[in-house]
Amino acid sequence: MYRTHTCGELRADNIGESVTLSGWVQKIRNLGGMTFIDLRDRYGISQLVFDENIEKDLQSKLETLGREFVIQVSGEVIERASKNKKIATGEIEIAVNALEILNKSEVPPFTIEENTDGGDELRMKYRYLDLRRSCVKENLVLRHRIGHLVRNYLDTQNFIEVETPMLIKSTPEGARDFVVPSRMNPGTFYALPQSPQVFKQLLMVSGFDRYYQIVKCFRDEDLRADRQPEFTQIDCEMSFVEQEDVLNLFEGMTKHLFQEVRNVKLDKFPRMPWSEAMDKYGSDKPDIRFGMEFVELTDVAKGKDFAIFDNAAYIGAICAPACAKYTRKQLDKLTDFVKRPQVGAKGLVYVKYNEDGSFKSSVDKFYSADDLKIFADNCNAKPGDLLLILVGDDKRKAQEQLCELRLEMGNQLGLRDKNVFAPLWVVDFPLLEWNEDMNRFQAMHHPFTSPKSEDFSLIDTNPGDVRANAYDLVINGVEIGGGSIRIFDKDIQAKMFELLGFSKEQAEAQFGFLMNAFKYGAPPHGGVAFGFDRLVSMFAGLDTIRDVIAFPKNNSGRDVMIESPSPIAKEQLDELYLEQKEIDNL
Amino acid sequence: MYRTHTCGELRADNIGESVTLSGWVQKIRNLGGMTFIDLRDRYGISQLVFDENIEKDLQSKLETLGREFVIQVSGEVIERASKNKKIATGEIEIAVNALEILNKSEVPPFTIEENTDGGDELRMKYRYLDLRRSCVKENLVLRHRIGHLVRNYLDTQNFIEVETPMLIKSTPEGARDFVVPSRMNPGTFYALPQSPQVFKQLLMVSGFDRYYQIVKCFRDEDLRADRQPEFTQIDCEMSFVEQEDVLNLFEGMTKHLFQEVRNVKLDKFPRMPWSEAMDKYGSDKPDIRFGMEFVELTDVAKGKDFAIFDNAAYIGAICAPACAKYTRKQLDKLTDFVKRPQVGAKGLVYVKYNEDGSFKSSVDKFYSADDLKIFADNCNAKPGDLLLILVGDDKRKAQEQLCELRLEMGNQLGLRDKNVFAPLWVVDFPLLEWNEDMNRFQAMHHPFTSPKSEDFSLIDTNPGDVRANAYDLVINGVEIGGGSIRIFDKDIQAKMFELLGFSKEQAEAQFGFLMNAFKYGAPPHGGVAFGFDRLVSMFAGLDTIRDVIAFPKNNSGRDVMIESPSPIAKEQLDELYLEQKEIDNL
Repeated sequence: MYRTHTCGELRADNIGESVTLSGWVQKIRNLGGMTFIDLRDRYGISQLVFDENIEKDLQSKLETLGREFVIQVSGEVIERASKNKKIATGEIEIAVNALEILNKSEVPPFTIEENTDGGDELRMKYRYLDLRRSCVKENLVLRHRIGHLVRNYLDTQNFIEVETPMLIKSTPEGARDFVVPSRMNPGTFYALPQSPQVFKQLLMVSGFDRYYQIVKCFRDEDLRADRQPEFTQIDCEMSFVEQEDVLNLFEGMTKHLFQEVRNVKLDKFPRMPWSEAMDKYGSDKPDIRFGMEFVELTDVAKGKDFAIFDNAAYIGAICAPACAKYTRKQLDKLTDFVKRPQVGAKGLVYVKYNEDGSFKSSVDKFYSADDLKIFADNCNAKPGDLLLILVGDDKRKAQEQLCELRLEMGNQLGLRDKNVFAPLWVVDFPLLEWNEDMNRFQAMHHPFTSPKSEDFSLIDTNPGDVRANAYDLVINGVEIGGGSIRIFDKDIQAKMFELLGFSKEQAEAQFGFLMNAFKYGAPPHGGVAFGFDRLVSMFAGLDTIRDVIAFPKNNSGRDVMIESPSPIAKEQLDELYLEQKEIDNL
Repeated sequence: MYRTHTCGELRADNIGESVTLSGWVQKIRNLGGMTFIDLRDRYGISQLVFDENIEKDLQSKLETLGREFVIQVSGEVIERASKNKKIATGEIEIAVNALEILNKSEVPPFTIEENTDGGDELRMKYRYLDLRRSCVKENLVLRHRIGHLVRNYLDTQNFIEVETPMLIKSTPEGARDFVVPSRMNPGTFYALPQSPQVFKQLLMVSGFDRYYQIVKCFRDEDLRADRQPEFTQIDCEMSFVEQEDVLNLFEGMTKHLFQEVRNVKLDKFPRMPWSEAMDKYGSDKPDIRFGMEFVELTDVAKGKDFAIFDNAAYIGAICAPACAKYTRKQLDKLTDFVKRPQVGAKGLVYVKYNEDGSFKSSVDKFYSADDLKIFADNCNAKPGDLLLILVGDDKRKAQEQLCELRLEMGNQLGLRDKNVFAPLWVVDFPLLEWNEDMNRFQAMHHPFTSPKSEDFSLIDTNPGDVRANAYDLVINGVEIGGGSIRIFDKDIQAKMFELLGFSKEQAEAQFGFLMNAFKYGAPPHGGVAFGFDRLVSMFAGLDTIRDVIAFPKNNSGRDVMIESPSPIAKEQLDELYLEQKEIDNL
């Protein structure tokens, strides 16, 4: 037996007991003749003490120890002279009388501490050592805990977990698939799922009623900072539901998680139509921890011979409270911010509504104090506030730029507290969006999302105006999940494929089994999928999903620890009837 | 709102309530003017009754209904005239006053009943309809339930679930990998994991202490009846454990499952060394629901001028109780059985120990009654028993044949009751087995399994005799799980790779990260993996794992429902710098 207790469980109650512990040497301190060792395992740290009068044999073993050695010790639990209130085992220590070295350790390439000296790349190469750091480990423990809470919650709601296949079929709609050549069926390929979408819908056709799965999904995309080629979804589907049924159930689940994980009690989540989110926040995932909603000044600001305003398709303002005192330098910096290529505005107009009721603006040449007062009144500004105005030829683009500015002001004013949570359901998304490159509509969510019945009459005349029964859960400006009520009528589904430019043959070849399934009594159904990685990173207060994944890949899709992907043997390719073509210099 | 209740929950208590139900039309019966409909959902069946005096509108809707239509009905819960004790809702029925057809159904290609008229292939093509059959659906509900029980049990034991990557690295040791070409890293490939083995070991190096995962694994093998290219494992690993720690913990989990799922209380599982299992049962997964252990007669049966026995390397018998009355025809059938190519014996020798104490055998010419009495005594046979004897040049092969015969006799004598469960830990497996084709040893479990320390001195002189700290959990002759205590010393691991014919460079290229990890304080660790599909199929009393998988593939690795695998577009191949070679006529 390697241990009687873990390194995290001994307390004052255990004083006098003989115990055996195993773990890693975190720290060794020599104080006079006494030696203290912090012994670490997943559960905590226990202090070991080696008396100056210990046996020679024990003493000589002790002298060989170094950081990260794995040892087993036996001894008596004694009361500590100087207690450590910071750790749970801080009242006791173990007076060691036997020591066994289970494994040695070379000096690790970086320190195994909260604040390590290891750079990103080094820590990724030695991820197994990085995972020893308690801050990293705790993220994964949290991930486990949230997964467990989700499963237990859904179990109480009659959901059953059904595993859908990983080796499925490539479909050109949507993002790029990872493909898997089939050896037994030469010349053909499986694809890894981007989501279990069609399978969960088939399970509804089968009458499973409530399905969930915490499941790996795959997308072969050029990776941005917060994407991984493989990611995990909490994937759910329900039958005989309307939109509010789905929203309420998963609102309940989310509240449960906040209560259990963060001890935060959330109120009912507001619902906001997509068009309102775009007009007020320039984003379909607004951060509503703070106000500063957009005010459109397009009508009131024109007609004063200021060409930039007069020619604009959109003039929008936000009112930054108590910021009239911003200096020239601060305003210049904001102008630089909106002109960065990532934001892309041409310039920034400001209007200071000074405490004394006077106005100072970058457009004083064209607008009198009375004119500016009208701007201020439109924005509900008070003396001391600062209006920040962006204009654009393209309304959506200008709103997106204003969104960036609003978030930046939120940061500057400390309005985006990580310990405040503002959930929001964004609803009534458009069914379709126009794709310039392809010169056709594409599905905003996916081709299985149902149009709102009250908008269905527009589907031939104004397809772009048709709203969908689609919704996203947004928390603090981050999209945590999304879903829709699905089409369950085979004719509407066929119509949808037609709108998306599928020929009948293409639709049949790719989704024939689903259209077929709809012939045999498909129930009304809908669902949602949560990004599990993102959900956990939000609860962990992290900015990237990489820190909540045990073995993440880098921005080139590489696992630098195992050095994957890697070349394979020619025999493997031969068996698949594949040949590597010459690769361009990249 | 589509429903106030499900089709499985209304009871006598609800009589008088107005309810709304949604579901599928299972059956329609017209009795005089009354119409009865069985309405089905996942939760059960409720009987609807339509009075002969219902409104015209309702009547005309009713007349259009057919099997598998999806409908919504409202009405009053009333007491049934003739109660149905077989179903939970059998005391009530719903007097319908409103009906809406939510979706129509064509006539399904087979009946949605326990005993369907659909053949295997048809049911696979329309798997979504097959899944409506309650026997199929119940298998998946059971699967969910077992998964949930496993997770909750392991949670109480401090295990945490950590997701390991799906896109990993191809390694030539073991079975064939499925590979995934990388577009971002042209000319290189990921592999899909055959198991998370090295990652779970790295998690132990990281100090995760107790890990589990219910996880998809992949193996590109030619499929036998009970194999799938993707399958699910309950994968577990623990640190600071010896073999008995692992066995006891997972014995506890298995007992918990039997208690919860089958209401069966199991005793302590016996442990049997691999060599004993082979000698007594000719199998490393013996079915110990019944005896009939092998008795070796090699020594006592020789020397009577019967060349077949005299030249045999092994002569083994089983004693079939009370079977001396077997007829000539029955014995001929047994001879045919052992001569089938799947078994492969050359013939069968029988010895009848008649009730009157006399003997009758197929080798009477060579063996006197006294000789046969010695056989019988060796086998502890009683008058009325039947000895069945097989011989062979190769001991293991003959034992495997005798194993098949023993199982057949177990079947014939009704000794393999599906409701009796006989678990067994098979332990002390050999570390290595000789591979004739490759002319070298290969790992019996995998290259990370540790040798028994007491056998380690044999590793250079008699590697074939070294036993491993490896174990399998066998229930009723089916291998449910297996695992080992791992090597955690880098030098022993290097030695193991050397024994398996790896050059230093190969070992470094493929498992360098693991060997590296072992340099930094790897703890002693070990684990186990259960075949989740097989575990569930055992609890469901099924012979194949296919019936507990929602969307299984056929023996060619094809999903005939979605028609996968399938060809992909040339552009997809181009992006991967791959070219399809001409395919031989297959």
